[in-house]
Amino acid sequence: MLEATWFSEAQPASGTAFSLKIKRKLHEEQSEFQFLEIYETESFGNLMVIDGCTMVSTRDNFLYHEMMSHPVLFTHPNPKRVWIIGGGDCGTLREVLKHPGIEQAVQIDIDERVTRLAEIYFPELCASNDDPRATLKFIDGIKWVKEAAPGSVDIIIVDSTDPVGPAEGLFCADFYQDCFRALSDEGIVVQQSESPLLHMNILKAMRDEMRAGGFQHMQTVFFPQCIYPSGWWSATMATKSPLTAFREQDAANKAFETLFYNADIHKASLAMPEFFRKAFA
Amino acid sequence: MLEATWFSEAQPASGTAFSLKIKRKLHEEQSEFQFLEIYETESFGNLMVIDGCTMVSTRDNFLYHEMMSHPVLFTHPNPKRVWIIGGGDCGTLREVLKHPGIEQAVQIDIDERVTRLAEIYFPELCASNDDPRATLKFIDGIKWVKEAAPGSVDIIIVDSTDPVGPAEGLFCADFYQDCFRALSDEGIVVQQSESPLLHMNILKAMRDEMRAGGFQHMQTVFFPQCIYPSGWWSATMATKSPLTAFREQDAANKAFETLFYNADIHKASLAMPEFFRKAFA
Repeated sequence: MLEATWFSEAQPASGTAFSLKIKRKLHEEQSEFQFLEIYETESFGNLMVIDGCTMVSTRDNFLYHEMMSHPVLFTHPNPKRVWIIGGGDCGTLREVLKHPGIEQAVQIDIDERVTRLAEIYFPELCASNDDPRATLKFIDGIKWVKEAAPGSVDIIIVDSTDPVGPAEGLFCADFYQDCFRALSDEGIVVQQSESPLLHMNILKAMRDEMRAGGFQHMQTVFFPQCIYPSGWWSATMATKSPLTAFREQDAANKAFETLFYNADIHKASLAMPEFFRKAFA
Repeated sequence: MLEATWFSEAQPASGTAFSLKIKRKLHEEQSEFQFLEIYETESFGNLMVIDGCTMVSTRDNFLYHEMMSHPVLFTHPNPKRVWIIGGGDCGTLREVLKHPGIEQAVQIDIDERVTRLAEIYFPELCASNDDPRATLKFIDGIKWVKEAAPGSVDIIIVDSTDPVGPAEGLFCADFYQDCFRALSDEGIVVQQSESPLLHMNILKAMRDEMRAGGFQHMQTVFFPQCIYPSGWWSATMATKSPLTAFREQDAANKAFETLFYNADIHKASLAMPEFFRKAFA
């Protein structure tokens, strides 16, 4: 039993809950799309909550944002154009723009209020929003991809909420088919794919949908993420070309700072737990 | 805020809490050493709690038990004799005895009640307690190691509670010095070393104490562990010989089943996050 000085995200389906001790609530609002809350926590800095789910904390977001961006960027042979679907807190955008080869990064989040709140409460994540290579759009990402010219992007990062509510359509074959068409020949889509411990059903369904959308080559990236259910999270990469492979030397020589990611972590994040390997064998 | 149908372990120092939804409390007792509770949870099977800290759940203990045993056993060149200090739930003992080369495994937990409760509520973890190679002792592990003959063991696994209360002495140079003496020339001690996100102070202090105890070569194993604070955990291996290295081929050819561990996971678990690498550079 926890008293009201904790914010708790309870997951009825998995019977788990994660809580952070809070100092105070800084903000709450119902946006056009979601219920948004910001808390000041005792030891994790600020916390953004969307529809009751912990989304971003100052302290541990580096794990998620680095692992949603650097593995895919160091897998594509020469990425120049990146779209981020979702990602309204701008942390993924910041990581993407650390790569000097990127010429254009477009963040497409349906909810402008997420970004406006991130600018106030997570300014460090928005540090690259004024980069001349960055564009922020507040429109429907599914529609954006559907209407895109074929081969017009190298990497699509789907940095979305869970597959319920506004993000549900991002986990479907129709969307992946549109991604496949919009991507260049060596293009890759990567999507957050929930907890390997709690959500193997989602991980399996995602691969099936990606395959139905035209992708034949998938890899899952595993990483710790304290504030998400089970503390263990994943992202699934789907590549158009079977030849796409980790540019290890480039990762080892990267000229920017990270807190979690490095070339060893990249390789390690692809190792499949035994239960996972058997599930997809 | 969570109502009383959840068991919560709140960590005041880190401002985090993890909770499991419970069906009912199955047992509680004050042993000579600790307060022990057993719950039936909604979705994690049974849960053992010691002094308010979640210790073992049916659902996710495989992560911890496999990663406390197989990495060290596949690092020692030819392990025959293993001591487990703590480990009263017998899950580590079961994993150790999966290795056919093991001739003798001694579990030394100060609290016999932990094992007696594990036999009732986690019978699968106690499946190897009757193996003729296994010995269960309910005595002080620190004293056991101090009084051991030099070179009398190949691997010491310190499967202890946190470094407060009964386990505090297991995190000190005096204890590591006794381990160093008790270990054979290629001997290794491995110890659970808390969360890389929340407890870097403990991880650093442990290496200092191990060094003061005579060990010059340390490696940290990282792995997910849902029910422990932050969901991300570690174990630190200290080897007497600088030449000790992963027996990759043996791990790849292992003749027993695991749920998490395999040769790829072994290598992956040793990858150092960037912040960790810099802290120990």
